[in-house]
Parts: sequence; structure tokens; C-alpha cells
Amino acid sequence: MKRKEFYQLENFMQTCMKDSAHDREHVYRVLHTALEIAEEYPEVDTDILLAACLLHDIGREAQYADPSVDHAKEGAEMALHFLLDSGWTGERAQQVSAAIRQHRYRSEEPPESLEAKILFDADKLDVTGAMGIARTLQYQGRMGHPLYHLDAEGAVLPGQNDSEPSFLHEYCFKLKNLYGRFFTRKGTEMAETRKKTAEAYFAALLDEIQVSTERKRLLSFLEE
Amino acid sequence: MKRKEFYQLENFMQTCMKDSAHDREHVYRVLHTALEIAEEYPEVDTDILLAACLLHDIGREAQYADPSVDHAKEGAEMALHFLLDSGWTGERAQQVSAAIRQHRYRSEEPPESLEAKILFDADKLDVTGAMGIARTLQYQGRMGHPLYHLDAEGAVLPGQNDSEPSFLHEYCFKLKNLYGRFFTRKGTEMAETRKKTAEAYFAALLDEIQVSTERKRLLSFLEE
Repeated sequence: MKRKEFYQLENFMQTCMKDSAHDREHVYRVLHTALEIAEEYPEVDTDILLAACLLHDIGREAQYADPSVDHAKEGAEMALHFLLDSGWTGERAQQVSAAIRQHRYRSEEPPESLEAKILFDADKLDVTGAMGIARTLQYQGRMGHPLYHLDAEGAVLPGQNDSEPSFLHEYCFKLKNLYGRFFTRKGTEMAETRKKTAEAYFAALLDEIQVSTERKRLLSFLEE
Repeated sequence: MKRKEFYQLENFMQTCMKDSAHDREHVYRVLHTALEIAEEYPEVDTDILLAACLLHDIGREAQYADPSVDHAKEGAEMALHFLLDSGWTGERAQQVSAAIRQHRYRSEEPPESLEAKILFDADKLDVTGAMGIARTLQYQGRMGHPLYHLDAEGAVLPGQNDSEPSFLHEYCFKLKNLYGRFFTRKGTEMAETRKKTAEAYFAALLDEIQVSTERKRLLSFLEE
């Protein structure tokens, strides 16, 4: 891809995601991670991959405005129109658009092409490991969610049984279960390393929380 | 201490910290951790320790309202008056008050009594390890700070040289440097374990960030 064309795609992405610096940082991480994965595939079509990575989240603003919108489908449509207007052939614009439509974890439609699989894996990797934990904690801080909840006796609820949002709950219901479904060898390997980081961190956090919420010791110091 | 007296102190703490659930959770963690540390000291005065732990952050609201207020000094005064009004002797109320005044990390006045040292260590432990990282990320999310900044060439600034707030910066300038100054044996030991957790997490995060912000690979795909 020519630099000029890359900058054109990058500009379009930035105009679509103007209000969300966090989302843009994520886009660049996905792009660079995808290129790392792609090194194992000499047959990869890098132009398709670069365009799909840069544009994969341009439907986010529409989903923020209306949560019933699927940002992957919306972004796929927006990308298709932009690429056709920019002179891409219908076939190649469709390939980029399909990869964007198929990048969503919750989608019924799994990624088909090599480029779609690489985008899917690179995007999922950004919610794994230390990065997944950091992004989740930042998000929960923004939403005012606590790290954990206590039961009526003051014991910590370790996430599985509490229904209110908390970091322990989010870890048990989302972060923990991300590691089973990667499509590329390199993506699977990177996820495996990151899984160990996330598990070690979570185990240490739970341990620290349990020591510091243990009420038995307190009760032994209080007389009737 | 009688349960009734504990509940009285607890109630006073809650009326002083009415708007900050996060701060109250912290108070209980400090209390339980202090009791864990205190197990090694049969000579500890548990009533002084319980009162000092429960009341150590009651000056926070005043500091939120006016950042020039030192919450440790303010809380020490508030606790002294409350305890005297509640029938504590002047000497014992002063002991609690001194422990509260001396609990602040940045204070010029180091903790003197055993109870003050235990409170200091338990309070500091809550900013170490996995908990320190979680609380920092939540806070930074609330403030809208990013995880990292990039330099003009797109390389990640690893925290030491950037002046804008970010998680990497906060880790390098604050979290990393908390581990040298604990006053009790058990506190030092707990801090050592938590230091390993924090270091492992930070190293993994930095590694993940570097892989996903590496621009050399991208440039090799772009033609002039």
C-alpha cells in the first residue's frame, strides 16, 4: 500500500472516531498486532488487512448513539462505501467489508478469509492479558463500578454469584472466558501467554481482597 | 472493645465519609489488614488500633473540598474531639489522634507508637500489589487519563520521560517506589509479595504495549 493511501484511510478512520481517543489507541494496537501475526503468512493480502484493521471500529460512534446498532455491521457498510468511492474494486472493497463485519466476538458470522481471521485475533488480543485487565479497570472506574461486593456477613463475593457490576464479576463472566477461540497459530500463542498474566494477576488480587475483608479476626476483638 | 463502642465509631466514620463508598471500602480493608499484622504483637492495644483504623480517613471530605487541607491532620483533630466527647480519656484519645496524624505517606512526622506503625503499614499496603494497580487504573479511568503516551515517532513513552498523566507515568513515579518503607515485619513481608505481583503485571503490560505500538513493521508495508 502506498503511504498516501494509508494516510487517506487513517484520516477517514479519525473523522469517524473523532471523540474517542481511547478507541483510536485501540485501533493502532490492533493494526500493529495484526501485522505481527501476519508475519507468519506470506500469502496475506496486506492492503486488505491494513484497511480492515484501520476501519474495523468506525461504526462505534453509531453504536454509542444507539446501542441497538451493531458496530461491526455498521462499520462494514461505511467502509464499503468509502472504499468504493476511493476507487477500490467491488471485490476488494467487499473483502475488507466482510472482515469488518466478522470481527465481532459476539457475531454469529465467524471470520472467513485469512485477513478476517487475523483482524479477529488481533482485536480479541486487546482484551486479554494485562491490557484487558487495564482497559476493564479503567472502564469500570469511569462507570463508578466497585472492585467487589460483600455478602450480608461481610465476606467477599468472588464474582460468580453476584449480579451487580464489579471487577470480579466482569472477570468471571467475560475476561476469563476469552481464551478459547483464536483462529491463527500466533494469535493462539500470544493469547496463551497473556492468559497466564491475567490469571496470575486475578489470583493475587483475590487473595489481597480476601485478606483485607476477613471479618473473623475483627469479631474476635469485639466483646458482647 | 465492646461491639456497641465499635458500632459507634463505625457510625461516626460513615457520617464523615458519606459520599465516598470507595473510601469506606478502603477503610475496612485497612482495618482487617491491620488486625492481620497485629497478630504478631501480643502487646498491641487493640482499642487504639481499631479506633485509629476506622477513623484514619475521616478528614478526606475536607481535603476533597479544599486540597490545601491535610486530611491526616484534619482527621486527627476530628477524631480527638469525637473520642473526648465519647468519654475516652485525654491520653488515649491523643494516642489515636497521633496515629491518624502520622499515617500519611507524605507526612514529615513518622509513626511513633506500635499502633501508629501498624496503621501506616496497613494503609500503605492498600496501594501496593494487585490492589494498588486496580485502584490506580480505576482512578485514572475516572479522570480520563490514558494508559500511555507515544512520542512523535509513535514509540511508546515508558513513563519515566513523559510529563502528562498516564498509567505508565503513575507507576514509574509513584507505585514503583512504595515498597521501601514499612515499619512492621509482617507489613514488610506482605509488601514484598505484593511487589512481585505489581512488577510482573507492569512488565507484562509494558511488553504487550510495545508489541502493539511497534511501528517499524507497519512502515515496511508502506511504499513511498
